[in-house]
Amino acid sequence: MVTKIEIRVGLKTGMADPEGANVQKALHLLGFDNIDKVESAKCYRIIIDKEKEAALEIAEKMCQQLLANPVVHKYTISVAD
Amino acid sequence: MVTKIEIRVGLKTGMADPEGANVQKALHLLGFDNIDKVESAKCYRIIIDKEKEAALEIAEKMCQQLLANPVVHKYTISVAD
Repeated sequence: MVTKIEIRVGLKTGMADPEGANVQKALHLLGFDNIDKVESAKCYRIIIDKEKEAALEIAEKMCQQLLANPVVHKYTISVAD
Repeated sequence: MVTKIEIRVGLKTGMADPEGANVQKALHLLGFDNIDKVESAKCYRIIIDKEKEAALEIAEKMCQQLLANPVVHKYTISVAD
């Protein structure tokens, strides 16, 4: 039994997001005028050899130990389709 | 009326994903042994000043014109909560 986990590592509110700001600028230059905000984030899709509950616990540990920096990042973990 | 759109830009199947491979290696070194695969992707959360349907169409154009390279990327667009 394997579980496909989706982890989304984004920046905490208030952290500078130059990539998002640059994407917003570029979209504006391309003529997209209805954009209020762009936030960038990093996603990981991880296939874990465990049942759903165990996989979610492992993913939480992965975020704490490697994928996210608690000073600047917030993360969400979900089961992918 | 604003709509929050989530765009996920990942690599097409078969494309090299060194970031994903390195994350997998690092997780393995940290003792996570149940991982079959790690895929990395870039996500953008964009707030668009339009109703849902119009916002989804705009997001599709954004991907075609800027956010994704059709040679190497596949993307999914969804409405974020």
